Amino acid sequence: MRKPKIVILGAGYGGLMVATRLQKSLGVNEADLVLVNKNDYHYETTWLHEASAGTLSPDRVRYDIRDVIDKNKVDFIQDSVVEIKTSEKMVILENGEVSYDYLVVALGGESETFGIQGLKEHAFTISNVNSARQIREHIELQFATYHNETVKRDERLTIVVGGAGFTGIEFLGELTNRIPELCKEFDVDFHKVRIICVEAAPMVLPGFDPELVSYATSQLEKKGVEFRIGTAIKEATPEGIIVGKGEEEVEEIKAGTVVWAAGVRGNSVIEKSGIEAMRGRVKVDPNLRVPGHEDLFVIGDSSLVINEEINRPYPPTAQIAMQQGELVAKNITALVRQQEHLDTFHFDNKGTVCSLGEDDAIGVVFGKKVTGSKASFMKKMVDNRALFMIGGVGLTLKKGKFKFF
Amino acid sequence: MRKPKIVILGAGYGGLMVATRLQKSLGVNEADLVLVNKNDYHYETTWLHEASAGTLSPDRVRYDIRDVIDKNKVDFIQDSVVEIKTSEKMVILENGEVSYDYLVVALGGESETFGIQGLKEHAFTISNVNSARQIREHIELQFATYHNETVKRDERLTIVVGGAGFTGIEFLGELTNRIPELCKEFDVDFHKVRIICVEAAPMVLPGFDPELVSYATSQLEKKGVEFRIGTAIKEATPEGIIVGKGEEEVEEIKAGTVVWAAGVRGNSVIEKSGIEAMRGRVKVDPNLRVPGHEDLFVIGDSSLVINEEINRPYPPTAQIAMQQGELVAKNITALVRQQEHLDTFHFDNKGTVCSLGEDDAIGVVFGKKVTGSKASFMKKMVDNRALFMIGGVGLTLKKGKFKFF
Repeated sequence: MRKPKIVILGAGYGGLMVATRLQKSLGVNEADLVLVNKNDYHYETTWLHEASAGTLSPDRVRYDIRDVIDKNKVDFIQDSVVEIKTSEKMVILENGEVSYDYLVVALGGESETFGIQGLKEHAFTISNVNSARQIREHIELQFATYHNETVKRDERLTIVVGGAGFTGIEFLGELTNRIPELCKEFDVDFHKVRIICVEAAPMVLPGFDPELVSYATSQLEKKGVEFRIGTAIKEATPEGIIVGKGEEEVEEIKAGTVVWAAGVRGNSVIEKSGIEAMRGRVKVDPNLRVPGHEDLFVIGDSSLVINEEINRPYPPTAQIAMQQGELVAKNITALVRQQEHLDTFHFDNKGTVCSLGEDDAIGVVFGKKVTGSKASFMKKMVDNRALFMIGGVGLTLKKGKFKFF
Repeated sequence: MRKPKIVILGAGYGGLMVATRLQKSLGVNEADLVLVNKNDYHYETTWLHEASAGTLSPDRVRYDIRDVIDKNKVDFIQDSVVEIKTSEKMVILENGEVSYDYLVVALGGESETFGIQGLKEHAFTISNVNSARQIREHIELQFATYHNETVKRDERLTIVVGGAGFTGIEFLGELTNRIPELCKEFDVDFHKVRIICVEAAPMVLPGFDPELVSYATSQLEKKGVEFRIGTAIKEATPEGIIVGKGEEEVEEIKAGTVVWAAGVRGNSVIEKSGIEAMRGRVKVDPNLRVPGHEDLFVIGDSSLVINEEINRPYPPTAQIAMQQGELVAKNITALVRQQEHLDTFHFDNKGTVCSLGEDDAIGVVFGKKVTGSKASFMKKMVDNRALFMIGGVGLTLKKGKFKFF
């Protein structure tokens, strides 16, 4: 009897969870496991705002996939996915192809620009290690250039953050920590620096407890962040952004750096492969499979699961991706063993903590509201938990966050 | 009787030497001392290539002027010099003016672009702390951007150094140390990086011993530097440089970074003030005064002293600037005390060491040729000596180079 071949696309939170769980639950004689990933490392998507602001070394936010994968059980292919040919049970890679019996798509999300003109060309996104490093270096170059021009352009020192959602707020928190350091390093007057957060929606951190949101905005404002809520970016230009103020009125905000931190969509590979999706997100069945495809699982940012309580999709987070990964590993194990019963997915929300920089955060953990250093501590525990779930004690000690006080 | 007022312009090697020597030799009742400098810090011009390559923190190459100046004896004015009105014995500053009885011009040199088109706009120069920081950040951004573009442009990773003189070679040495670090940090393949040195003259390090020059080029070539000797930069563009190969033939070298490390001229304030000079350098009299001006001394990069042995000017170095500073302090002390005799300047060449990066160098010290780690050790001693001469043991311990092995 031929061994079934299980292919996992992506080594993010979801994909690595599937791979590490399957290498434990399945014996070498039960199945072939293949993991495909663009890079030979995993990165902590939820830490990228720190690498982008420069408060954490980019090397700290990633680890070698080989550190958590059992080479005897999992074949690792470093390549990019081009397309999935579901009818042929085949994945087309940039430099080859790989067939599968069961496929797990865990390719992560992409930045959604909503068709705003110039955003792709003139704004940065906090998407991966490469883009995070570029943001950090770009901001540093703006500061380094400031004193080196005959006519000083204060707008070089303006940073616009588009979006007051989770990523936007966490990035702002790190920036408020980094800016004083940059001012010192490059002899720049702190008062010349502006950090402006532009958000089209009428609120900061939609879905968060209003009391906590109010704490967050007031803390960030104290550190110099200007909020422009209910203000839409109409266009990004080489000089900055154009925002809409009212019906017709527009205003230019000149800025040396524009970071677009709003909008995540599913992976474009989904659509390219002809899989039904909304903005790249597949509404998966209760077993986390693509409806009509018994061999095809989608998890993480490219999956869509409805929160029945409010009849809206759960936001894409590392927490949900990892829980999905655990469940998919269970279900694939069952399928390989030709068991009838598959588990259905229920998101167990353990809480959400939004960092506001070093030693400050807001969150709801196990139903309790927390702020300040206590919340910041919880945030680091959440970050360490992801490491522990995937790589155990060893990885947590190696890459975890232990600078608590 | 009115106390004479001695004004020193510039806190480089020469200016600080004058100031620190005069604050020792003259009593508070003998003269008023004023030091004018653009920044509140002194920087080690001879270390800037390290800060530019990123092998030394920019903060390590500078120190607070107040660390070496006796506040009770010297008034410090932080301002930029606009013009010297010799007939009125007055210096016009950007934000004020200051009168003098004796003036020491030690304003340092400027980059000379020889009218090459586009050089000012598209090339960096290793001129001061600001420009060094900008070069470092610019190169880092090129590496950070490389993996973040859909189409990878290898020329981003090409660095052109214009000039194979002292600064050019020392900068190349540091670059060859930094590049492997950058490749690791930004996941860039070392073989994609190119370092090209373009020199119009038919030789590297003119005036240096040929055997040492041959050692230097071979060491740098081993580390990947490509030399284009006898090749003139015709133009710098946003994409790189255009070089002349033969009579008519030209070639484009695409490069993400172009650093112009050839050509130093005197300070433009000299010409603006109507003082006779060649490319901003004043041919001073044996007492280091401007001919016809008994109260006006010029030292350092803006002065020109002929080496009688070869009937050519001494190249501008920190060593000569400091020796000039010592002599001027002596002569001004004599003038203040109305003594007849002034000393004449004779350059005492203690040797020259050219760094080739960490733990490698070439040089002639006390008449002996040295290479490799021995020369590198000598180089660090030379660097420390300047600190010691100006700031004594305290400053040397605080800012010196002690990573010898």
